[in-house]
Amino acid sequence: MPQDKPQQPKRTDVNELGEFGLIDHLTQNFPLRNPSSIKGVGDDAAVIDNGRYLTVVSTDMLVEGIHFDLMYTPLKHLGYKSVIVNLSDIYAMNARPKQITVSIALSNRFSVEALEEIYDGIRTACRIYDVDLVGGDTTSSPRGLIISVTAIGQGEREKLTYRSGAKVGDLICITGNVGAAYLGLQILEREKQVYLENPGVQPELEGHDYLIGRQLKPEARRDMIGRFEENGLVPTAMIDISDGVASELFHISKQSGVGVFLEESGVPIHPDAQLQALEFKLDPITCALSGGEDYELLFTIDPKDVDKVKYLPDLYIAGEIVPKEDGVKLHTKGGNIHALKAQGWQHFGPAR
Amino acid sequence: MPQDKPQQPKRTDVNELGEFGLIDHLTQNFPLRNPSSIKGVGDDAAVIDNGRYLTVVSTDMLVEGIHFDLMYTPLKHLGYKSVIVNLSDIYAMNARPKQITVSIALSNRFSVEALEEIYDGIRTACRIYDVDLVGGDTTSSPRGLIISVTAIGQGEREKLTYRSGAKVGDLICITGNVGAAYLGLQILEREKQVYLENPGVQPELEGHDYLIGRQLKPEARRDMIGRFEENGLVPTAMIDISDGVASELFHISKQSGVGVFLEESGVPIHPDAQLQALEFKLDPITCALSGGEDYELLFTIDPKDVDKVKYLPDLYIAGEIVPKEDGVKLHTKGGNIHALKAQGWQHFGPAR
Repeated sequence: MPQDKPQQPKRTDVNELGEFGLIDHLTQNFPLRNPSSIKGVGDDAAVIDNGRYLTVVSTDMLVEGIHFDLMYTPLKHLGYKSVIVNLSDIYAMNARPKQITVSIALSNRFSVEALEEIYDGIRTACRIYDVDLVGGDTTSSPRGLIISVTAIGQGEREKLTYRSGAKVGDLICITGNVGAAYLGLQILEREKQVYLENPGVQPELEGHDYLIGRQLKPEARRDMIGRFEENGLVPTAMIDISDGVASELFHISKQSGVGVFLEESGVPIHPDAQLQALEFKLDPITCALSGGEDYELLFTIDPKDVDKVKYLPDLYIAGEIVPKEDGVKLHTKGGNIHALKAQGWQHFGPAR
Repeated sequence: MPQDKPQQPKRTDVNELGEFGLIDHLTQNFPLRNPSSIKGVGDDAAVIDNGRYLTVVSTDMLVEGIHFDLMYTPLKHLGYKSVIVNLSDIYAMNARPKQITVSIALSNRFSVEALEEIYDGIRTACRIYDVDLVGGDTTSSPRGLIISVTAIGQGEREKLTYRSGAKVGDLICITGNVGAAYLGLQILEREKQVYLENPGVQPELEGHDYLIGRQLKPEARRDMIGRFEENGLVPTAMIDISDGVASELFHISKQSGVGVFLEESGVPIHPDAQLQALEFKLDPITCALSGGEDYELLFTIDPKDVDKVKYLPDLYIAGEIVPKEDGVKLHTKGGNIHALKAQGWQHFGPAR
């Protein structure tokens, strides 16, 4: 009767497969049956054919103690961010989010007022991004807070961009600086430790507004989708930077069957991030490539379209798509060429 | 800095509002902005206009320790049921589910093999109900297992049924017996207690296959949607029975602005449920009206359509829609008339 005892001799730890390996492994045997299911698991969002438009669907779950820490995350920001991370996935398909559903599970330590704060953030995101909350579920959890958001968007058949469309010779573009959200998190974690060791000490957050803001209140690059439209640009491939530039490049490499040649000098790093990395004795480019949660867009374009992006603000050309056999490489400022490592967020920590 | 200390003087316990009150309260201030958002929070599913068809979206979150107990819930059944409860919501709109997304958060006590079991159940549900898994997320949780499923379906504009369409004089129909899933749960809970007190004793589950099956492996009434189509029937209102007949009738009453006159003699109870209720010293009709998770459909029809349902198998006419001022009443077999009480599942238990 009891199910929590091992029933089978084999027990593979989830860490063995890694986050992406795990998803691939679990979803490999799900054939698509409906003609309207154009794209299933494996991109920023699923794509459904509705005749006139394509419907794009993305879902993300945020778990207390894994994705956020309420010691330093205001609930309103949490609500806001939980929406943004999903909208970002829809924009990464070159589509526009229209609706969201939100499911929240929370323990009794949260009051109605706490929930109102979360919904206040959700409402603000809905207002700013013109998205409708159309459904959801609020339930209890034995412990902690879990927020699951699904975003539904609309795209045009010819303009939807997948991770799989990059071609050799395409240019790699990034819509803004990267690594700042990661360094913001490091500051918050440091101040949390100081506070825990000495609750009388005030946290030193002043002067770190930019980095902390990138972590706690990210924005999705809706504006870029608008600029693409104005300029008649359709990227060949696109992905949002949630796990880190390196990790996203590996997704594009794998799904497009191509290699990547990334220029360190082309990867934008904010001056605050640069300084803060050095203060933490971290390599700024490593933070920029492996830190996640920037929610910028990384996309590739046909080189003939370079004039369409050259004068866009916040746009950085950071490398080139190369043949698959050339691998995924970083050309450093010092002139060396390194193989990049994919380092997605490692959420599967030690057993608790 | 710390957010877990109360920031505001006011602290309202979530229990004060109740589950439905809470959702209403939190989502009251979300105006719909997009013309394609036809129906937001407050029905079995949201409705989105896509031109040719309407897209119907439903989402549900299942939390270990709240919605399921792994002591007696096989993981495969859990995966299956997590899909079914969402499909049921789509059918309750008189629409057909086509796609699902699945997000799972789980602690390290679960192995890859455990996850495979869950996905095996999800896969079986996808196969049987012709639904595609098109997205999702697998992440870690500090403790326990959480499954969040979103189902996306397709409906025709003129055939979609809402909770709000019931009219005075309409007949109330139920697609199958109710209360069995609740009694199945009571048996499982009893055997769990016996096991916990004396791990050497084998659980007595034999002879209870029907009731336990209704709890652990519910089905959604896809067949009924097909029969409606064959018979040219469009219910005036519809809802699935997840929280219990009484609770669902209150939803229809509230959203249609009508009263309900329910005949006890018309509420179908399986003989096994009848016997088991008596063994537990419970009133069978109370189990039938307040026990949830049957996933039958409750719908109302115009009386002129009675010939279209009369000869359907598994269909019970259980009452009539009456004017709002007549309230929501039960006419007992003994000839008495009682006011019904809405008793949704009370998930917000004591603080832990």
